[in-house]
Amino acid sequence: MRANPNFQKLPAGYLFPEIGRRVRAYAAAHPDAKVIRLGIGDVTEPLAPAIIGAMHAAVDELATRETFRGYGPEQGYDFLVEAIREHDYRRRGIDVAADEIFVSDGSKCDSGNLQELFAADAVIAVTDPVYPVYVDSNVMAGRTGAPGPDGRFPGLVYLPATAENDFCPPPPETTDARGVDVVYLCSPNNPTGAVMTREQLTAWVAWARQHDALIVFDAAYEAYIQDDTLPRSIYEIPGAREVAVEMRSFSKRAGFTGVRCGFLVVPKEIRATGAGGERVSLHAMWSRRHTTKFNGASYVVQRGAAAVFTPEGLAQTGAQIAFYMENARILREGLARAGFKVYGGQHAPYIWLETPAGTTSWQFFDELLDRAHLVGTPGSGFGPQGEGYFRLSAFNSRANVDEAVARIANVFG
Amino acid sequence: MRANPNFQKLPAGYLFPEIGRRVRAYAAAHPDAKVIRLGIGDVTEPLAPAIIGAMHAAVDELATRETFRGYGPEQGYDFLVEAIREHDYRRRGIDVAADEIFVSDGSKCDSGNLQELFAADAVIAVTDPVYPVYVDSNVMAGRTGAPGPDGRFPGLVYLPATAENDFCPPPPETTDARGVDVVYLCSPNNPTGAVMTREQLTAWVAWARQHDALIVFDAAYEAYIQDDTLPRSIYEIPGAREVAVEMRSFSKRAGFTGVRCGFLVVPKEIRATGAGGERVSLHAMWSRRHTTKFNGASYVVQRGAAAVFTPEGLAQTGAQIAFYMENARILREGLARAGFKVYGGQHAPYIWLETPAGTTSWQFFDELLDRAHLVGTPGSGFGPQGEGYFRLSAFNSRANVDEAVARIANVFG
Repeated sequence: MRANPNFQKLPAGYLFPEIGRRVRAYAAAHPDAKVIRLGIGDVTEPLAPAIIGAMHAAVDELATRETFRGYGPEQGYDFLVEAIREHDYRRRGIDVAADEIFVSDGSKCDSGNLQELFAADAVIAVTDPVYPVYVDSNVMAGRTGAPGPDGRFPGLVYLPATAENDFCPPPPETTDARGVDVVYLCSPNNPTGAVMTREQLTAWVAWARQHDALIVFDAAYEAYIQDDTLPRSIYEIPGAREVAVEMRSFSKRAGFTGVRCGFLVVPKEIRATGAGGERVSLHAMWSRRHTTKFNGASYVVQRGAAAVFTPEGLAQTGAQIAFYMENARILREGLARAGFKVYGGQHAPYIWLETPAGTTSWQFFDELLDRAHLVGTPGSGFGPQGEGYFRLSAFNSRANVDEAVARIANVFG
Repeated sequence: MRANPNFQKLPAGYLFPEIGRRVRAYAAAHPDAKVIRLGIGDVTEPLAPAIIGAMHAAVDELATRETFRGYGPEQGYDFLVEAIREHDYRRRGIDVAADEIFVSDGSKCDSGNLQELFAADAVIAVTDPVYPVYVDSNVMAGRTGAPGPDGRFPGLVYLPATAENDFCPPPPETTDARGVDVVYLCSPNNPTGAVMTREQLTAWVAWARQHDALIVFDAAYEAYIQDDTLPRSIYEIPGAREVAVEMRSFSKRAGFTGVRCGFLVVPKEIRATGAGGERVSLHAMWSRRHTTKFNGASYVVQRGAAAVFTPEGLAQTGAQIAFYMENARILREGLARAGFKVYGGQHAPYIWLETPAGTTSWQFFDELLDRAHLVGTPGSGFGPQGEGYFRLSAFNSRANVDEAVARIANVFG
């Protein structure tokens, strides 16, 4: 069987397994060290009571013939789609049609699957650092060459996210001769914790309209935005419906990392270009992809997700987010007191810090593990521009966060 | 944005929406007709009590910080993987390693995603009639031309499944000059209800080994096999581990059509051919795909699936399958008494019947709806060789099945 040759372009070692390996080795050599993990971005609070109740009720529905549900609509049940429409969009003055919302089992899948709609030679732009799924899924699909010594894949357009541009790169001023077809933007950002302003997003929408490009807007961390004047949806920007799809997730907003639910919004106005120059509906294409290769998110999960939008669900999940954001504040301020230059953590559950001068991301990883028994994520794991940075997550108990800050003060303060 | 041009090759009208449209139109014009649906293959019995109990317990685990589970292993939790290994394989004398089992959210996804591992110009063979996802996912990936007037896609190799070969086509005797890279085999078969014998599967494995081809073995209906001498897994055939992957699903074996769980087995022995002729591990490729684009099946769902393998779960789901298979017997015998030539329904929940002479599949659909108020699936919807055939599903209440047989006797008997 002739295999897809593009998989061989991906490096064999992944970021999180390598972190796991180093932590296991350290723990084995230092069995008394109480290691605190602020690395992988996984939630720690239990599901809100409103969600638990809704999931129990849904399980009970599946227990009797009269209320049993088999195959559901691939796009998601109306009860969830309408709750999303109302709460996430209509209340903020945005009109999204029910059939423009595609419920999925999470944004990781949507991030990986969306590129199936792009031409094989479409030019993809990503920020650097970047959430790795955007890159890897396009590498697997053959839109790049093999990586160079700096880890970058020829064929991708990299947009450096640096302290100078507040980790929110502007649209490229001049375009590649071939033109960028698609750009992935994540705000609030994983890994940097940066959030795009209305002005920045407006510039991106204008650029996309001018260059007939598509914006893939990843708003998985939208619920962490603390300033209500910041845009939560790209559709708050006039003209975005013609050029942008938007991903959202219940993982971080409601603790669904192990429950699995997200959704993708694909407005009907978006037109892509077919092989013969004809204009084709991206909505029709995604609808075909979604119904052909997916059979809907689990019924029990969709009932749990819908409960997020009840008054109780909103209050309970809101309190969890406030709890994590207080963790973020404690981490941010503790790091700053210890002399670190810190970014993010104000509208996102991630702190992005500069490693001490002359220390690489991985060197700092080892130092932090050895001296403070803390685990974080080396910034270089998210791209070459992440070198010299380090990500800490606010997902943990208050006791662990307080302890982490105390250790940082001890070691570096 | 330049779009993937291959989506335009897919016909706009799909089978099941067209069925839905005709049924709605008929019901609107005949509001008193009590329509019985034996069309789409969706289960009707509620989840077994053992599964319900396990899902409630899992939901409760997510309610407290001490037992909460966030991201799980992408391949699936050990408790489920080990249950699958033991029950589905080891008890039948088959050794499958834990890390060769990839738990997913269902076989539709696995069916659609697997082709990402194949080269862009890999030659794909499918039976005709066929489960449409095998075809459509390869069309979207560009491995075919636009369909001809008979609905067939140039570039695919079609293997006619006919009454003459018991709807189990043998391997092609001579291969296309380019060679077939991959063949999709489904047994027990959707839509024909045919089941492959050990001799037939042995011939396929020998062929695949001789031609360095991959067999994608879809065993979603394995639990419906009534004769224990028939193979339930392709790995019962010596030599299959080097040439076959196997899909299984909890949808039809345990009523998970709306709950969503399945798995794919990828043995480590399988070698595919890279662009430079080198041999690459298909297991390593699928592992990379699965961990990059998927975040694991829902924890609650995995706990439910594991409960299928408890003594209570096996007894309860076994009783459901026996119930559906008794439905199949009643349908089969009722149809035969009414003069129909019927196939399948002995080791599968599907009856495949010949339409009356001179009647196309869609004409019979309309006649059955109009005269007996019964809904089935036109065989031609599964491929040109399905013309003149019709699929009825055994998933229904006993009362509806008895009533369906009575109506068939009245109208056609």
